Formats: sequence, C-alpha cells, structure tokens
Amino acid sequence: MLILTKQHIEQVFTMKDAIEADKEALRLYTEGKCEVPLRVNIDIPKQQGQSLFMPAYVEGLDATGVKIVSVFPNNIKQGKPSVPAQMILLDGKTGEVCAIMDGTYLTQLRTGAVQGAATDILARADSKIAVLFGTGGQASAQLEAMLNVRDLEEVRVFDLDYERAKSFAAQMQQQFASFKTRIVAVEDGDAAIVDADIITAVTTSKRPVFNGNLVKKGTHINGVGAYTPQMQELPEIIVQRADKVVFDTTEGVLAEAGDVIIPIDKGIVSKQDFTGELGQVILGQAKGRENDEEITLFKTVGTAVLDVVTAQLIYEKAMQHGVGQQVEI
Amino acid sequence: MLILTKQHIEQVFTMKDAIEADKEALRLYTEGKCEVPLRVNIDIPKQQGQSLFMPAYVEGLDATGVKIVSVFPNNIKQGKPSVPAQMILLDGKTGEVCAIMDGTYLTQLRTGAVQGAATDILARADSKIAVLFGTGGQASAQLEAMLNVRDLEEVRVFDLDYERAKSFAAQMQQQFASFKTRIVAVEDGDAAIVDADIITAVTTSKRPVFNGNLVKKGTHINGVGAYTPQMQELPEIIVQRADKVVFDTTEGVLAEAGDVIIPIDKGIVSKQDFTGELGQVILGQAKGRENDEEITLFKTVGTAVLDVVTAQLIYEKAMQHGVGQQVEI
Repeated sequence: MLILTKQHIEQVFTMKDAIEADKEALRLYTEGKCEVPLRVNIDIPKQQGQSLFMPAYVEGLDATGVKIVSVFPNNIKQGKPSVPAQMILLDGKTGEVCAIMDGTYLTQLRTGAVQGAATDILARADSKIAVLFGTGGQASAQLEAMLNVRDLEEVRVFDLDYERAKSFAAQMQQQFASFKTRIVAVEDGDAAIVDADIITAVTTSKRPVFNGNLVKKGTHINGVGAYTPQMQELPEIIVQRADKVVFDTTEGVLAEAGDVIIPIDKGIVSKQDFTGELGQVILGQAKGRENDEEITLFKTVGTAVLDVVTAQLIYEKAMQHGVGQQVEI
Repeated sequence: MLILTKQHIEQVFTMKDAIEADKEALRLYTEGKCEVPLRVNIDIPKQQGQSLFMPAYVEGLDATGVKIVSVFPNNIKQGKPSVPAQMILLDGKTGEVCAIMDGTYLTQLRTGAVQGAATDILARADSKIAVLFGTGGQASAQLEAMLNVRDLEEVRVFDLDYERAKSFAAQMQQQFASFKTRIVAVEDGDAAIVDADIITAVTTSKRPVFNGNLVKKGTHINGVGAYTPQMQELPEIIVQRADKVVFDTTEGVLAEAGDVIIPIDKGIVSKQDFTGELGQVILGQAKGRENDEEITLFKTVGTAVLDVVTAQLIYEKAMQHGVGQQVEI
C-alpha cells in the first residue's frame, strides 16, 4: 500500500495533469462509465461535526475509491484542520486498497482543475483579464488552474476583507511569478469585472458577489463555491444572460447548487435553458462557446468521480517514479 | 496514522479482549449509541466482483470507521485473497483517519468473538462438549472463541469433506494445545451432536447441517455462517424448539439470515417467538438462559459496530504499547 502526502503528490502531479485528469473524469462520467453511489453522511453531534464517505468506481480506469471528509469546526480550537480528508484508493482489478493519500490536497487540486478544464474549453482563447472572488483555502488552486489554461495579463482578486485580498495577492504574485501575470487585489468587485474575460467565484456567500448586468459579452464565468441549495454567489441575471450554461454533473448541480436552484425556483430560468455537462461538450454532444460574443457559465459542485480519476492517475505516476512510502498491511 | 498488520494486532489483542469488545459493541448498539448507515455496495461486473463500504459511528467510544471489503473471486487465479479487506478508523473527536488495519483478520476476530460472547452469556456453565460445523477461513476463530469461554473437554469438527476435517482438527489441536481440549474430526455430524453442550455452525450451506430433533435439552447453538436469505445451515425445528432465540442485531438477522427468515416465511416461527438482542440480555432487558434444561440459540450476521468497536480498542492498545507502524499523511 502506497502512502502519498501532499509533498509526494506535488512531486509527480502538476495542475496541468490534474486538468487533463478532470477532463477525462467528466468524459467518463457523461459516458456512464462510472458508478457513484450516494455519499454517506454520519452526523457526530457530540462534536457538532460530520464525517462524509464518498465512494465511486470508474470502470474505464479500473479504479475504485472512497474519499473520507470530516467537517469538525471545533478542530480549529486545537490547532487542527477543520476539514481533514483522506482518499482511499482500491485497485479496481483486485479490490485491494492500493493507496492512501492526502484528501485535502487532492480536493484542492481537482476542484481547481475542474474550473481549469471548463475555462480551457469555454473561455475565449484571447482571454487576458480574470477576476477571482474569494481568498479562502480553495482560492490558490483556482488561480493556478486559470493561469495554466490562458495567457493572462492580470488577475484581480476580491475579498470582503480588502486587507486579506492584498495579502493573498502578494503571496500569489510570488508563488506564481513564473506565469508573468500581474496579480492584484481590488476593493471594488463590480468595477473589476466590467472588462474581465474570466470571472471565477469561490466563496460560501448567500448573496451574489458581483452585479451580473455589468458582465461584458464574451466573458466566461465559473461558479466554484456555493455548494448548498442556500448559497448563491452568482447573480441570477447572469445565469439568465449566459448563452451557454454548463455543469460538471447535472444531477449534482440541480441537487445542491443554490446558484442554479434558486433562479429555477423563481422561474427566472428553466432546465431547458441549460446546455448540459462539460463531458457532453468534450464528447461533442453539446455545443460549447460558438463565438466571441457569447457569455459562457460553468457551475461545479464536484463529484467523487473527479477524486477517483485524479487519485488513480496520481497513484500511477507515483508508482512509475517510485515516489511515496510503501507500507505492508 | 497507524498501520496495523495481522501480526501487530495479534501482539496486543487477544480473543478474550475481542470477546469483551463485542459485548461492549452489542450493548452500545442496543442502547442506540451507534449510527450505522446502510452499507454501500459497488458492483464491479468487469471482474465479477463487488466492493463493499461499511461505515459506522460509535458515540460512546468517539470512534468512527469504515470497513472496506471486496469480493473478487477471480483473485484466486492470481494467488491473491478473494476477499481482501481493510479497516479505516477515524478519530471520532477530530474526524482524522487515525489507523488502517488488516480487515480480514479484524473480521475473523470479531466474528469469532461475537459467538464467544453469546456462548459465554448463553451456554451452560458446565458445558464440556462442543461440535463445530465447517472448517473454512472463519472456523479457527470460532473454535478459539469457544475455547476461551468454556472449559471444554472435547470439540468435534465436522466438514462435508472428512479429510479436510481431519487435517483441520490436527492443526487446531496443535495451535490450541494450551487449552488441553481434545479436538477431533467426526464423520457423522448427527451422532456428534446428541450429547453436545454447544453447537456452532459456520458454513455457507443452503441445507441444515444437522438434525434438530437430536439436539438435547440444555444445549446452546450458534449460527455464524448462512449470511444471506437463501442460506440455511440451522434446522428449522431447532429455531422452533429453542427456548431462547437471541440475535446480534434484530434488524440485520431479519434482513439477511435465511436461518430465521425461511422458518418465519413458512409460518414455523414468528417474530414474537424471539427473545431479542444479545445487547438486551447483557443490559438485563431480556432474559438469557434461565435453567439447565433450556435450549438457547444465537444467530449473528455481523454489524459494522462490531468492527468499529473492536478496531478502536485494538488501536488504543497498540498506541499504548507502541505497536504498529506510524506514517505521515
């Protein structure tokens, strides 16, 4: 059994690899070559916590896995991560557990990458300016993914806390210096989006984080945060204005994403207005961007298939390079 | 994170420990201090296999875990175990994965132990002669458990294949020499049970493995195999004759155990005839054996609570003794 820490994963697997992994995952998902049972949630009322078990099987890769994510807000008091996560990978040919890896980093990577995949497929090729809403734990992976798929001149970072945005931008400018992109904090999110080519929101907001009327033609928007029916970071008007509305999985988005559920419930949009899944666009079963005037929108809530496919490809690369700690069990 | 192999577990945890662990588990289960979601089954048709995910949370011990068991009959051809299993244990206070251990040995141990617990609680104190039906992978743990709870003079071992029974008995006689119990193979199961005090069946038979009319008064019977609605190793008449019929979990037995479901469906017994759960007997909420004339019967199909409680207690003992391999993740 192979143990893979974040450092091991970083040694063998880049964001570019993760973006390709997510494209493959969504293609396999749309083709129906995956089995994704309902996730199991166990409430731990004593700790006001929850442990979630997310299994999936991907036939094409002979890969089975379960991501275990716990949400324990009280962990903070003990200086521990409030959302510890591990990925358990099984050899789909034998059913044996073959690897255990850092599930927190895997989640960051695959969630950044799915937005990278959508941006790569849906954003204008000449996109130069991006805006990122949110500077939480997931933000740097979103930034890295967009830097990997477009040759950006500037990324503007907005957070309700401007000081936090400044500190995040400065840190990212250093971390991603090799991309030669200006990374700047902004105080006015609406002013920042008027000439943006790409907008990515990764917040837990219950109120839209920008004015959808100000989005220019040709922009691509990613909704990555807002993962419950009550959260809504994208303005309803932009869900209506978008020429193409694409999901990672239709089932997941319609069940969990307030960004889409709320405007449907209000009658502002209907299910017929949606383009389909990114996997359908990849397979040519649905049309992506057709011209430089269209507004495209991608909403993701994640799926265990992204975890299993990405974990399997990380595992294969690690084995190939002899990276990770082998243990007997 | 602590990695525990079978050898590590054997170093710190005895069958006696496991029997006490299972008693505690069934008590906590009956008290409702556990959460056991439905297990998740993923079919792997390509390998004619199945991967099963069995999570549970035990509040009283702050323990959460998931046992992953895969059933891959084709593994045999590659010289690999056909039912690989691992137990993933989470710290119920923080949600972090704290240990991974050999799930095959854990299953053997806790399944042997639950029969040990029932025998300890329900069999006559002066039991001297036992009969074991079945010599498969689970049989030695059943034998070890009964040897631990009663001072037996003789255990008779029956298998459809007498040569196999002889070889098993010889091996067990050596392995459990310290108990000073004669372990002998028998060719005639019915002849073996007429004066037996304890009868344990651990087979996958679809036909009763002994004649229930021949069971003498005062005998205790354990049904450990026959874990599907189609399997039936216990004669219907003994389910009817038994003065006390006790289950590990009523929900599990009534859903999965042909030994009980088939006689109910035939109208031979009804749910009102059953005594209750072993946890209820332990808690004094139901009566166990009341005199030396009663026939008692225990049927177990297992529950994830046995896995989580046993794994947690193994983990605690291993930490205490510094046994196992610590890895960073």
